[in-house]
Amino acid sequence: MEKSLAQISEYLGGELVGDPATKISGVAPIEEARRGELTFLANPKYAPFLKTTSASAVIVGRDASAEGIKTPLIRHANPYFAFARAVELFAGAKKVYPESVHPTAVLAEGVELEKGVHLGPFVVLESGVWLRHNCTVLAGSFIGENSSVGEGCLIYPNVTIRENVEVGRNVIIHSGTVIGSDGFGYARETGVHRKVPQIGGVKIEDEVEIGANVTVDRAALGITRIGKGTKIDNLVQIGHNVDIGEGCIIVAQVGIGGSTRVGDNAVLAGQAGLVGHIRIGKQVVIGAQSGVTKDVPDGTTIFGYPAREIHKTKRIEAHLSRLDLYVQRLKEVERALKEIRQSAR
Amino acid sequence: MEKSLAQISEYLGGELVGDPATKISGVAPIEEARRGELTFLANPKYAPFLKTTSASAVIVGRDASAEGIKTPLIRHANPYFAFARAVELFAGAKKVYPESVHPTAVLAEGVELEKGVHLGPFVVLESGVWLRHNCTVLAGSFIGENSSVGEGCLIYPNVTIRENVEVGRNVIIHSGTVIGSDGFGYARETGVHRKVPQIGGVKIEDEVEIGANVTVDRAALGITRIGKGTKIDNLVQIGHNVDIGEGCIIVAQVGIGGSTRVGDNAVLAGQAGLVGHIRIGKQVVIGAQSGVTKDVPDGTTIFGYPAREIHKTKRIEAHLSRLDLYVQRLKEVERALKEIRQSAR
Amino acid sequence: MEKSLAQISEYLGGELVGDPATKISGVAPIEEARRGELTFLANPKYAPFLKTTSASAVIVGRDASAEGIKTPLIRHANPYFAFARAVELFAGAKKVYPESVHPTAVLAEGVELEKGVHLGPFVVLESGVWLRHNCTVLAGSFIGENSSVGEGCLIYPNVTIRENVEVGRNVIIHSGTVIGSDGFGYARETGVHRKVPQIGGVKIEDEVEIGANVTVDRAALGITRIGKGTKIDNLVQIGHNVDIGEGCIIVAQVGIGGSTRVGDNAVLAGQAGLVGHIRIGKQVVIGAQSGVTKDVPDGTTIFGYPAREIHKTKRIEAHLSRLDLYVQRLKEVERALKEIRQSAR
Repeated sequence: MEKSLAQISEYLGGELVGDPATKISGVAPIEEARRGELTFLANPKYAPFLKTTSASAVIVGRDASAEGIKTPLIRHANPYFAFARAVELFAGAKKVYPESVHPTAVLAEGVELEKGVHLGPFVVLESGVWLRHNCTVLAGSFIGENSSVGEGCLIYPNVTIRENVEVGRNVIIHSGTVIGSDGFGYARETGVHRKVPQIGGVKIEDEVEIGANVTVDRAALGITRIGKGTKIDNLVQIGHNVDIGEGCIIVAQVGIGGSTRVGDNAVLAGQAGLVGHIRIGKQVVIGAQSGVTKDVPDGTTIFGYPAREIHKTKRIEAHLSRLDLYVQRLKEVERALKEIRQSAR
Repeated sequence: MEKSLAQISEYLGGELVGDPATKISGVAPIEEARRGELTFLANPKYAPFLKTTSASAVIVGRDASAEGIKTPLIRHANPYFAFARAVELFAGAKKVYPESVHPTAVLAEGVELEKGVHLGPFVVLESGVWLRHNCTVLAGSFIGENSSVGEGCLIYPNVTIRENVEVGRNVIIHSGTVIGSDGFGYARETGVHRKVPQIGGVKIEDEVEIGANVTVDRAALGITRIGKGTKIDNLVQIGHNVDIGEGCIIVAQVGIGGSTRVGDNAVLAGQAGLVGHIRIGKQVVIGAQSGVTKDVPDGTTIFGYPAREIHKTKRIEAHLSRLDLYVQRLKEVERALKEIRQSAR
Repeated sequence: MEKSLAQISEYLGGELVGDPATKISGVAPIEEARRGELTFLANPKYAPFLKTTSASAVIVGRDASAEGIKTPLIRHANPYFAFARAVELFAGAKKVYPESVHPTAVLAEGVELEKGVHLGPFVVLESGVWLRHNCTVLAGSFIGENSSVGEGCLIYPNVTIRENVEVGRNVIIHSGTVIGSDGFGYARETGVHRKVPQIGGVKIEDEVEIGANVTVDRAALGITRIGKGTKIDNLVQIGHNVDIGEGCIIVAQVGIGGSTRVGDNAVLAGQAGLVGHIRIGKQVVIGAQSGVTKDVPDGTTIFGYPAREIHKTKRIEAHLSRLDLYVQRLKEVERALKEIRQSAR
């Protein structure tokens, strides 16, 4: 497929700078793009490539400097988003899974399948499972009793969804992920850890995406909730009764302790850990590997182990880099004092 | 189901304060409980809810203050445990899996199934596997050659148990978990990492529970052991030849390096990391995200990166919060000294 | 099986010290070895066991002190490697999976199987999958459209390999691992996270080993690469478009952010985290739990959170241990200054 830059720019709603007849036949990252390919520049780290790229055109921000750049540009308010749409344009339609139930799938009594459902080989649906329109459940995935999966969901191979889980619309769940495993709850009695029954459920709201090998525990009582449009990366742990708001970004290997609440549009960077029973406000940003043990007010950016407001952690880090020097200066002061005292005698 | 508070209190062995005829029809967390529901208070963080809860009764500690509280109470020495038993009372009997082998299960020659075994769809048992009385192995789980699973175990869907693994009685293993994967061992020779054969086994003792997507590596030689009654949360990594004692609590995303030994009743909080070849004593408590690189004596509580005795880490953290101030004071001292020296000239 | 120490020493290319007729019937770790068993000493931590072991012989380094040791020794330049070979000698041949396709395996049209391929129960191969000579794919594993697996690979049970993944020769992939899950990419537009299509692939080069429950995301565009001979432990996260060189060692629970490049022969210790879009040089060593946010030059050893050159982090840690003392000394200085000023009045 080949398109003119004019066509692409119009499709993306961008402003074209350069030859509208430029032919584009594909998309690529800026450091790898070759002649005939379209690329983009959003992360300033990659700005030097703008001068050296072999791409035939680059999507850039409205205000990006184009000094000395001869490559045709498409200016756009959101270059990363525009590029994503360009990728779709060239990648062709998303894979469509036809309505079909693989003959090896095992469906218990009382399973309800709406129109357009696709079940791969070795899928197991227990009794009372309800799959809504155009759901796709791929090979080897398991859905337990009375769980339901909303319209247009895509469940990749080897996913486990336990009983009494409610999945909303257009949710994507990647391979190896486990939804609804028992929460980690024990009461110590006569020297032994007695299991506290975990009889609650899980609710995954619309438009959520959950990465590979993630674990979302079911509630002890009530529900564990992942709010609408929240995106979760791989290997994340969500404890029982956690409540995650809408539009959050949770990066790989984050762990969230039981009953913690995370506000809407929060961003949790990779490997951050949150203890249980705390409240993280809306729009909070938590830096990578941070250790969070206290409530965090709305809109705060925190970082560190233990997590502090980011400017505090940054100041501490700067001081730590100079700690050697401070200790020298302290010794110097002590020496000077000693001299003063000796000369005063 | 509805029960009187008197019945419940008697069943739990508690001391009833309030109307014994109070009707209870369910259980709920204290901040969500409604009329007709029983709840509990164990974590002091939730104490304020005692005054505002809509619950019809609350299980509290023997010494909890009841000043100004009109809600009926059940006093109990271990309110969390009592509540767990109340949950069981209302949740009804645990799900029982009937004796049956799903027709799609694949059993190699020489598999031995005792009475009461339940095998779900697409279970694979290799030759020499021995499942004891009342074992349940759910959909898509795999058990390798010569492994055995003790009486009353529950293996959730999509678990992988490799060869020569011995699982004790009443063990629960959650979905996605892998027991007996090869340990991570290579010998560098002529610039290449040569695999060291991992031919040992794994022993999971009685009453252990292992969460979802956990990995427990088989020993290089000998065994990797998880001691009786130890409870392991999700996404935990247990290296080869690790030896974990009895009654330990290992929270999500902890990693334990090869050949490390953990004593009985140790508690490892979330995301803690232990290097290989160290000894953690009995009753040791390791704080969340701690990095442990040395032996830890019995009964110690350690925390931090690197892990130190908790009071040391807490003092360092307090100093770090004031580091800005200390640096100011150092500068102040330097200035004062300079003045003294100048005036002394 | 029993062999003389002379035979073993010759097989390993070692230098025998002691009775060549010593009979050896097995191998064991030094602290557990009994009479008739061969063991080794490579980690100096275990040196004290050399005097107390019940082993009948020990493989040691060329220069290991043998003062007062009566146990026969095999001296070898690389005792760990020599021991690994001895283990192979006694463990017998590696398990061989015969050429066979289990009748329950589901093969789409256009799957190509070369000679010697072994497919376990419930394996699913989508269209265009190509398995080379002597590949083994065990129970419940899934391989997506147009992926290929090279000669002599071993894919353990319940692995998921998505579409357009290329696996080289003699690769081992452990259970629960997911290769080719979508990268974590969203463009924020009108307040919503829009999914950026992840249409690239993954390339796993020859001799790579990947542990259990690992996740390797497919590239957005282009490929995510794991270089030849690199070994990856359990529960590791590899983001989209990451490029890992040859001969690297990546220990359990490491996370690597998108587009980061790791040079040949780098070592990443457990739970280390690397942000996206950075370059880690060749032969770099990154300590456990380190947080890496910047490029790292070739040959550097870094450690800490944030990661610094290891000697800097070690100095900071040493200062932190004495911080209490420094603060006392600062107070002492302030007190002395106050006295000097008062006496000066």
